[in-house]
Amino acid sequence: MTNPTEPVTLYVCTACRDAADPADGPRAGARLLEALAAALAARPAAPVRIEAVECLSVCKRPCTVAVAAPGRWTYVYGDLDPQASAEVILDGIGLYAAAPDGLVPWRERPQEFRKGVVARIPPAPGRPVAIPPGAA
Amino acid sequence: MTNPTEPVTLYVCTACRDAADPADGPRAGARLLEALAAALAARPAAPVRIEAVECLSVCKRPCTVAVAAPGRWTYVYGDLDPQASAEVILDGIGLYAAAPDGLVPWRERPQEFRKGVVARIPPAPGRPVAIPPGAA
Repeated sequence: MTNPTEPVTLYVCTACRDAADPADGPRAGARLLEALAAALAARPAAPVRIEAVECLSVCKRPCTVAVAAPGRWTYVYGDLDPQASAEVILDGIGLYAAAPDGLVPWRERPQEFRKGVVARIPPAPGRPVAIPPGAA
Repeated sequence: MTNPTEPVTLYVCTACRDAADPADGPRAGARLLEALAAALAARPAAPVRIEAVECLSVCKRPCTVAVAAPGRWTYVYGDLDPQASAEVILDGIGLYAAAPDGLVPWRERPQEFRKGVVARIPPAPGRPVAIPPGAA
């Protein structure tokens, strides 16, 4: 059974770069990380832990994030705007955190997640993916 | 510490389809699954467990697989041939299984994995990713 109090992990690729990157400034991925950290600070109850990652190997679709939690599917998303996406990413991850297996109905997913999905990976073997009947 | 006797999981997307799919036959993904099962049967010592997945959400780059194991990075690969890729996938996963954190040096990776990488995700939080000094 997934633990509803256990935070989900939001991996943010800090190596992602885009054409708008200033020559001597931080890359788009680093700017997205900063925007997400600021947005999360304004949501102290959000069950999300941000982790910077040097590279998620989705270099052709910056910016990129991944979200994972024990017992849940892992999702990777790309094509995210380093500034405008922060709030919608946290909105989408809130839905993910509320779904026992991480599977959010398609129609409820933010447009950015529908269009930007790069891959999904099943929960780790041996971990139940659903709350047993009567246990919820 | 990763457990060298614990098999890694090879997820195979059975929904992947390509232009060569027969109209009334199995999809490319299902054919890759069959080819991998046959190739793995010829390697009884390989520490690999194959798991069919309905969709890995990499629909634009068939065929697609993912490989994961506790304490290791997860990798997703696409653009794989449903027949010709089976042996090279198992070769590449053998290298992955032998690497404590799943990180195989770039030059050692099969060409199919170098070109076909779709994404990678860090090991789950709280799980050590390396064997402590002196413990190996």
